[in-house]
Amino acid sequence: MNKAQPIGVFDSGIGGLSVLKQLIRFLPDEAYVYLGDTARVPYGNKSIETVKNYAKQCTEFLLNKNVKMIITACNTVSAVALEEVINTAGNTPVIGMIEPASEAALRQTVKGNVGIIGTRATINSDAYKKSIESKDIKNNVKIISKACPLFVPIVEEGIIRHPATRMIAEEYLSNLIKHNTDTLVLGCTHYPLMSDLFRELMPGINLIDSGEHAAVNALRILAENNLLKDNSENFSKRADVNFYVTDLPVLFDDVAKRFLGFDIKKPVIVSLPDKK
Amino acid sequence: MNKAQPIGVFDSGIGGLSVLKQLIRFLPDEAYVYLGDTARVPYGNKSIETVKNYAKQCTEFLLNKNVKMIITACNTVSAVALEEVINTAGNTPVIGMIEPASEAALRQTVKGNVGIIGTRATINSDAYKKSIESKDIKNNVKIISKACPLFVPIVEEGIIRHPATRMIAEEYLSNLIKHNTDTLVLGCTHYPLMSDLFRELMPGINLIDSGEHAAVNALRILAENNLLKDNSENFSKRADVNFYVTDLPVLFDDVAKRFLGFDIKKPVIVSLPDKK
Repeated sequence: MNKAQPIGVFDSGIGGLSVLKQLIRFLPDEAYVYLGDTARVPYGNKSIETVKNYAKQCTEFLLNKNVKMIITACNTVSAVALEEVINTAGNTPVIGMIEPASEAALRQTVKGNVGIIGTRATINSDAYKKSIESKDIKNNVKIISKACPLFVPIVEEGIIRHPATRMIAEEYLSNLIKHNTDTLVLGCTHYPLMSDLFRELMPGINLIDSGEHAAVNALRILAENNLLKDNSENFSKRADVNFYVTDLPVLFDDVAKRFLGFDIKKPVIVSLPDKK
Repeated sequence: MNKAQPIGVFDSGIGGLSVLKQLIRFLPDEAYVYLGDTARVPYGNKSIETVKNYAKQCTEFLLNKNVKMIITACNTVSAVALEEVINTAGNTPVIGMIEPASEAALRQTVKGNVGIIGTRATINSDAYKKSIESKDIKNNVKIISKACPLFVPIVEEGIIRHPATRMIAEEYLSNLIKHNTDTLVLGCTHYPLMSDLFRELMPGINLIDSGEHAAVNALRILAENNLLKDNSENFSKRADVNFYVTDLPVLFDDVAKRFLGFDIKKPVIVSLPDKK
């Protein structure tokens, strides 16, 4: 592997763009390949065997694009199929969403009250809870999990600042607020877009953005393996990302811009498994 | 130099704790030595020669503590005396506040409208403006600077959520808002504590926290030089920081906790220049 190779990021859909955004923030000079399996999204309600199969196909697709690292931006894959990705990737390092965020939550909580929010599938899998508990060697932490199924459609519809969204968020978060949650794990790629609202409803909260901590992890691993691209002196250059999707969703451009904060190149539509 | 050595951070006062907070967030396993020159704060209204002299003394103090890297958390020192720190530090790498934040601002702005806020001294020095302009090779960026002298006392008095603070912030930021600023450089160590208010008044703003970008830079430089401490598996361990101040300010513990989010060890009072 060498420095010039791109970093691969995959997700069941477009939510992984919030992870890509954090990667670009910390590693602006890298090239990226983003794959969104938009034809088969969401993965959360599929069987574990099927998710493993899809994750394997996504990983193989990225390996064919000659990536030097794979970021599993999808929480469902990170929860139930990370081993599959790691085994498929061979020597290529793999970073999931759950470990880095769990470690950050344990480090940042002061009162020991950690909240986890995610889709119903992620919360039901207990992946974050188990990960945090396994690392909490002093048994200091109390965890409250809450599935927030309406947040994904709210973000995709772009009604984050609607008063109804605030009402829904107040209801979802009420038990966490009542129990003095001081650290909130955003266990879904869509939730970082709602951070301002969470900060308003939970003043002083430590928000744990899985994508951010995955990006820091990526920086560390690449640097330690001498695989970081050299810093460019051209700070006006926009991020170098090639987008691939398995289906072009309606409003893709708008939603992508909302996630990333800038316009993107037209995505290329591909089939999985990759026939090339 | 070796991995086990601490990272040194200095500031004219306690504001640098916001930078330390970011360092701990990205590099939780490192040991830190923090020096606040609280007997001589603020540096902003002193002559350049005096600031250089103080900066040299702070650097020598940290070198005596056997640090492997020096973070100049003070914006005034970063603006007018970074060369002095670098020259004094010899082989020890030095990171200031201005370069990393300037690069991040250029990278993150979409509309090209960058705002810079800071103390009167920092804004009058034009250090951020000059740095951004020198890196803006395509001449894409319009910069609006605004001194916000009341924000430091507001943060230290802990009245960030007071309605008067909102009124003052609205006035300070009005010209930036009018000119569609999309990226705001927080050119003072105290301002990250006001981030929620800035986000409320400027929805969708890219906030550039100098401490955060300095921390990412530190991670990268340490990793590339094989000086990163190994990851600990004890995630409940609190950060290992030794605090030194040249004077113990009233309410130091309260203010420090507000900056860092957790209680700190009692600071040791020292004299500069260090006589040891």
